[in-house]
Amino acid sequence: MDEPVLLTGAGGRVGQAILDGIGEPYDWRLFDREPLSAEERPPGVSREDVVVGDVTDESTVAEAVDGCGAVIHLAGDPRKTAPWDSVLRNNIDGTQVVMNASVEAGVEKFVFASSNHVVGAYETDDRTPGMYRTSDEFRLDGTELPRPGNLYGVSKATGEFLGRYYHDEHDLSVVCVRIGNLTREHPPPEYERGHAMWLSHRDCAHLFDRCLRADYGFEIVYGISDNDRKYYSIDRAREVLGYDPQDNSSEYRFDGTPKGE
Amino acid sequence: MDEPVLLTGAGGRVGQAILDGIGEPYDWRLFDREPLSAEERPPGVSREDVVVGDVTDESTVAEAVDGCGAVIHLAGDPRKTAPWDSVLRNNIDGTQVVMNASVEAGVEKFVFASSNHVVGAYETDDRTPGMYRTSDEFRLDGTELPRPGNLYGVSKATGEFLGRYYHDEHDLSVVCVRIGNLTREHPPPEYERGHAMWLSHRDCAHLFDRCLRADYGFEIVYGISDNDRKYYSIDRAREVLGYDPQDNSSEYRFDGTPKGE
Repeated sequence: MDEPVLLTGAGGRVGQAILDGIGEPYDWRLFDREPLSAEERPPGVSREDVVVGDVTDESTVAEAVDGCGAVIHLAGDPRKTAPWDSVLRNNIDGTQVVMNASVEAGVEKFVFASSNHVVGAYETDDRTPGMYRTSDEFRLDGTELPRPGNLYGVSKATGEFLGRYYHDEHDLSVVCVRIGNLTREHPPPEYERGHAMWLSHRDCAHLFDRCLRADYGFEIVYGISDNDRKYYSIDRAREVLGYDPQDNSSEYRFDGTPKGE
Repeated sequence: MDEPVLLTGAGGRVGQAILDGIGEPYDWRLFDREPLSAEERPPGVSREDVVVGDVTDESTVAEAVDGCGAVIHLAGDPRKTAPWDSVLRNNIDGTQVVMNASVEAGVEKFVFASSNHVVGAYETDDRTPGMYRTSDEFRLDGTELPRPGNLYGVSKATGEFLGRYYHDEHDLSVVCVRIGNLTREHPPPEYERGHAMWLSHRDCAHLFDRCLRADYGFEIVYGISDNDRKYYSIDRAREVLGYDPQDNSSEYRFDGTPKGE
């Protein structure tokens, strides 16, 4: 990707994991609601490469995406308890504005930060906690219909189908990454479900790097590390994107310390 | 259904087809942006039974749904070319407001008017016009992922997944009817696709009647007549709802006149 890459929500947790891991090779244009400190910008990215604005503001977004070859769209209200008015505006409307501006600017690849909450309601009382365990064979692979567990999940499902529309009707290459539980260094302690859907920082950065480099039409993939406990398949991410995760939550005890130490 | 039934968008094409066909047995409460004339109301429904308001207005909707046992939610911008701002507000936000108010009012059954446009992009250049013909075996049955052909379709897909959420998390019984091409008396002349997805007025009224009477959890069904040309399966509507359509577009010539006359 020789052209600039627009990263929205650059100051958030996922954005910072990406920039920490794969910051240098790309010509980044960062977008956030707040100015980013020097520590929040990768080397070589100046204050002038950061657009401060709201993703629902069409003219600001159009200016930010102008000349970009790819977009990683992370911006939105990240709270699983976010109220409807906020996800309607920040997540649903914001994603449409960014996708539409991307098509108009001739962007090739669009990487959409979706969420495990799109399918949260598959975790029914009769399936849990069994499905979080290594012995359980239940898998979601991205071909299933959404079953959002909250309105945040509804908003992310809508983003995926906006992506489907902009791919089918406007030829945008779109990959939706249903991000698991992203934590630094080790899986979330004492949280069995979090171990099953753990995504390490380095696997996160590598996965988004693959999203910028691989060729695809429209894809929905799960973004988790290669956890023994997984109930999300990462086969599609491996096949289509060349995702090759290095981490596995089973290398850690429930208190967060590595096993064998 | 002994309790009142709220019908939003009552003055629209689908609403009028329902009221013409099954008006009398139900205790209707009608909702529309405009007052309804005496001709637009079924016998026994007075001007006082009509709420005039906007479906995004939470307090008006809460008042309208209070005491109802079921809701048929048709209101929204029905144009396939509707711009984003309109479907965001009228279709996406409006549906959330009506579903949320329904849950809070203790409504049992929610019938959502979805659309064939949720899956419009399955009609690819290599499938059409073959898929519109009797000899073609291609079928969509409601288990497939949405592929909206326009932003209107995206908004209807969102309504379906709002329904999935309100069913899974709040126990609302929800059926989403992907309505085909509703026309009075005969299929749309000279329109092969329209013959394939024709829904006659009497089959429409019967289908929504079944949605009020049958028992279900969450369903997505196609709303078309029993057309020989169909590429939407009506098996699920038959099985779960007891839908028993009487009409078939193949009984009509392309100019709209009945065959054999």
